[in-house]
Amino acid sequence: MATAVKVYGPPISTAVSRVLVCLLEKDVEFQLISVNMSKGEHKKPDFLKIQPFGQVPAFEDEDISLFESRAICRYVCEKYADKGNRGLYGTNPLAKASIDQWLEAEGQSFNPPTSTLVFQLAFAPKMKIKQDQGLIKQSEGKLAKVLDVYDKRLGETQFLAGHDFSLADLSHLPNTQYLVGATEKGELFTSRKNVARWWAEISSRDSWKKVLDMQKSV
Amino acid sequence: MATAVKVYGPPISTAVSRVLVCLLEKDVEFQLISVNMSKGEHKKPDFLKIQPFGQVPAFEDEDISLFESRAICRYVCEKYADKGNRGLYGTNPLAKASIDQWLEAEGQSFNPPTSTLVFQLAFAPKMKIKQDQGLIKQSEGKLAKVLDVYDKRLGETQFLAGHDFSLADLSHLPNTQYLVGATEKGELFTSRKNVARWWAEISSRDSWKKVLDMQKSV
Repeated sequence: MATAVKVYGPPISTAVSRVLVCLLEKDVEFQLISVNMSKGEHKKPDFLKIQPFGQVPAFEDEDISLFESRAICRYVCEKYADKGNRGLYGTNPLAKASIDQWLEAEGQSFNPPTSTLVFQLAFAPKMKIKQDQGLIKQSEGKLAKVLDVYDKRLGETQFLAGHDFSLADLSHLPNTQYLVGATEKGELFTSRKNVARWWAEISSRDSWKKVLDMQKSV
Repeated sequence: MATAVKVYGPPISTAVSRVLVCLLEKDVEFQLISVNMSKGEHKKPDFLKIQPFGQVPAFEDEDISLFESRAICRYVCEKYADKGNRGLYGTNPLAKASIDQWLEAEGQSFNPPTSTLVFQLAFAPKMKIKQDQGLIKQSEGKLAKVLDVYDKRLGETQFLAGHDFSLADLSHLPNTQYLVGATEKGELFTSRKNVARWWAEISSRDSWKKVLDMQKSV
């Protein structure tokens, strides 16, 4: 590889950290470029050229720029198939389909309530934004139902998509870390036997520990 | 192929119709199996074995069962790469990455407000559920911002991911059809020049017309 790939955004962002842990798993060299969101840098014309929604992360490799963290992760796994963790996005079509299925479950069912809870419980107080208790309660109820499905699944297989750690598990790290580590809602995860076992396992990976170090050093 | 793939769920479901239009584009033979949701068939143990969240669609091919409409579409395009519309999920890694990016934009940015609007405006009245005007207004605001980004993009390229119709465009058909055809919010699309041109083009595809016929014949 001629040059390192570029990731734009702060590592404390859940979507940025999803991309970072993927790059670390895949052992792909990257350059992290800061985007000062409090100064509105993510809404400036130059940034909007590579991330038209004005969100983070944005990503650049040799001949492509991309946005959307899960799409970036898929691209990294395909482009750098032979590097690092080779099974992260499956090594055959059936494994890949199972990973895609649980990655979509994360994006469609897990992410909406957990993103709301992370914002309301971890970020809103720091930003002096009033918490919406009705929304918190509603999101907690939705998350509980999702985690019941996960707990059953994780009683049958070691990881969500099967016997190996994959992009589907990885994609859950950022939001779960905030909920378990920085709010009082961690019990939703730790009270469910199989989810608790899974969370202990995936959150102790070296790749994720490195991301947590990056978050602390900002 | 020995047997047709199986799709479980009613064609009026947006997620089911997303899978159906993909199968029609790919010219893959399928069998549609009804799931009577008003009788709670989607919550019964046999169905939960293939769709643990108790939602539609569920999908079965020779040696795999899947859920999540976008994951099913990806699988269909990979497994039946040489059938029907061969470019639907791209024919090279860069095209595929661009499709994944806009497919994720659909799933993460377009789908949440449009799903809410479809439910509130098209389904709630029929189900005699009271509409939430605050939620409708909030979703409309979010959708307008997304469509502004789309309108700019579609002023530069014919379709979202580039010069060819792809899975990224296809995935927008079900929710947009309800909003344009069955609510008073169609102007959000038709008032934006490039979005309007794009919608006219993608909604007139034979594959989508067949899905609309299937919806009418139920």
